[in-house]
Amino acid sequence: MIMAIETVALDDLNSQLVLIDQTQLPGKVEILYLSTQEEIREAIYLLKVRGAPAIGVAAAFGVYLAAKSIQTDEYDAFLREYQKCSKYLEAARPTAVNLAWALHRMEQVVLSNADYSVAEIKALLLKECTAIKDEDTDMCRRIGEHGLSVLKDGYGILTHCNAGQLATSKYGTALAPIHLGRERGMNFRVFTDETRPLLQGARLSAFELVEDGVDTTLICDNMASQVMKNGWVNAVFVGCDRVAANGDACNKIGTSGVAILAKHYGIPFYVLGPTSTIDLNTPTGDDIVIEQRPAEEVTEMWYEKRMAPEGVKVYNPAFDVTDHELITGIITEHGIAHPPYTESLKALFEKK
Amino acid sequence: MIMAIETVALDDLNSQLVLIDQTQLPGKVEILYLSTQEEIREAIYLLKVRGAPAIGVAAAFGVYLAAKSIQTDEYDAFLREYQKCSKYLEAARPTAVNLAWALHRMEQVVLSNADYSVAEIKALLLKECTAIKDEDTDMCRRIGEHGLSVLKDGYGILTHCNAGQLATSKYGTALAPIHLGRERGMNFRVFTDETRPLLQGARLSAFELVEDGVDTTLICDNMASQVMKNGWVNAVFVGCDRVAANGDACNKIGTSGVAILAKHYGIPFYVLGPTSTIDLNTPTGDDIVIEQRPAEEVTEMWYEKRMAPEGVKVYNPAFDVTDHELITGIITEHGIAHPPYTESLKALFEKK
Repeated sequence: MIMAIETVALDDLNSQLVLIDQTQLPGKVEILYLSTQEEIREAIYLLKVRGAPAIGVAAAFGVYLAAKSIQTDEYDAFLREYQKCSKYLEAARPTAVNLAWALHRMEQVVLSNADYSVAEIKALLLKECTAIKDEDTDMCRRIGEHGLSVLKDGYGILTHCNAGQLATSKYGTALAPIHLGRERGMNFRVFTDETRPLLQGARLSAFELVEDGVDTTLICDNMASQVMKNGWVNAVFVGCDRVAANGDACNKIGTSGVAILAKHYGIPFYVLGPTSTIDLNTPTGDDIVIEQRPAEEVTEMWYEKRMAPEGVKVYNPAFDVTDHELITGIITEHGIAHPPYTESLKALFEKK
Repeated sequence: MIMAIETVALDDLNSQLVLIDQTQLPGKVEILYLSTQEEIREAIYLLKVRGAPAIGVAAAFGVYLAAKSIQTDEYDAFLREYQKCSKYLEAARPTAVNLAWALHRMEQVVLSNADYSVAEIKALLLKECTAIKDEDTDMCRRIGEHGLSVLKDGYGILTHCNAGQLATSKYGTALAPIHLGRERGMNFRVFTDETRPLLQGARLSAFELVEDGVDTTLICDNMASQVMKNGWVNAVFVGCDRVAANGDACNKIGTSGVAILAKHYGIPFYVLGPTSTIDLNTPTGDDIVIEQRPAEEVTEMWYEKRMAPEGVKVYNPAFDVTDHELITGIITEHGIAHPPYTESLKALFEKK
């Protein structure tokens, strides 16, 4: 898959956004070719593309395609129309930081090149969105390199949720070492937690790993303990949504449980992500507010069939926080931070 | 529900077996009234009644109803026909120990009373199957009493799978203290793991707890760590399928993970079950062979919708073994065994 299909790309003529529709996975591999703002905004809104980096890249491509179709040579008119398109796309997922970040970066190209012709600005915008994607791919590759340094050929790796290539331009974060290792002919045995309630592990990680020819075994979340007890896991690799200054890591619900099991069985537990997810202004995990999601995600199977009795309460947090004491290392594009994290995370930023 | 509907019972005229169809829960509360051998065997085979004790009671009632309908006053002819019925019912689930045990006990009534009239033997069989049920209820009540001794009103309790009233005549095993406490006006807050892949926690435990008026919160298996971290759990109560002589406990897949989390958070972890599940001839949990179940239970949602890509492997063990070092106490009808279990479990049998 890595060679054949990309998560998000421009077509050869730079006139369409090409996406895998992730809402159809794994049942159907449907490639979308989108050209209008409306189509692109809808794809982001409906999670056809998901994962912070992938959303950012899709938005950058999207705003470029919108800019390209603006029919004026006059800068002020172009800027007005451009900003309208940008705001329109940004509203697709108002809380997605990477979406806003990518659109802001694209807008800077327009704002800081007012003395260029509109045609030249359009060319600079193409360069910028391509750079955003290339930088993301490069960052993931570097996370993969650092991750590979703690792996050996043949290792068993357990992962949770999907911090894979489908969430980024290429390679992914937690799965980057595995995909990069595959490119180099290495073989791993990967166990992927299905990741209830939305099954990102079963639907997405299992899909991209099988496509990449990785020996992949799907388990229910509650089977991780037995898999570890069997001696099949040499390392746990998970992604992260936010890392606090003390190393506490917020990630998909269930991650902290996997970390506790790994510690019990003496298995190294690694968090992988770009330094942009490390927030030195958040002192500890206690300062991270955890989003609560609708009960129906748990009580109904894809909103189709009720699986729990009426009257039952539901607790459905989207994330949990893994205590820094459970984390062997935090693997970023700038290297691996080890405990004590208060010092090592700061040092990563100085390396930048 | 405890007052209104029983898991398994005879009707007032002792002429029909009355069951809740557990395959329809929680969507539909359907009460079955069964009188023929064929209907009763099918109910057992199709898991309309499940849980070792409940299956035993259903089979005892079933063979009584079969015996009642045998049209002869001649002992030898009666015995021949009786044994045919008994074998027919036993074949419904050939590996269910309680099914064979209950039918064997019923047959002893026929064999050891050859000098009685057939009408008298039928009356003795009714007495025996009623006794089997009453003894089961009494045993569960006693497990409940011992379990209540470690609880306080208002406690938060986490449970996994369904070791409840729906698996027994009444009260259940792991859930017995909660139902018994309810009868006495106590209030608990129960968190029930949904228990993938077959969702016994979401479908069965949540149902019987809500019906009993218990404050019940359903969570995905991977949320237990966060619930414990929130300080909401004072004790974990789980059932068991087999306990080895050293206290290692085999139970539904996922139980060992919950035990490791409980230890990490300093929460007492109790295994509840009748002494009949303690097998002093099994030295340790390593001697217990774990049943592997079909991949489709994990990859497809109720065999209806594929949730994982083709080509992915699946590991789907039905049970896991919780190390005795993680268990605070093993609660039986004869009292609570504490570490070291090699001694305390033996002592329980001497109490009998």
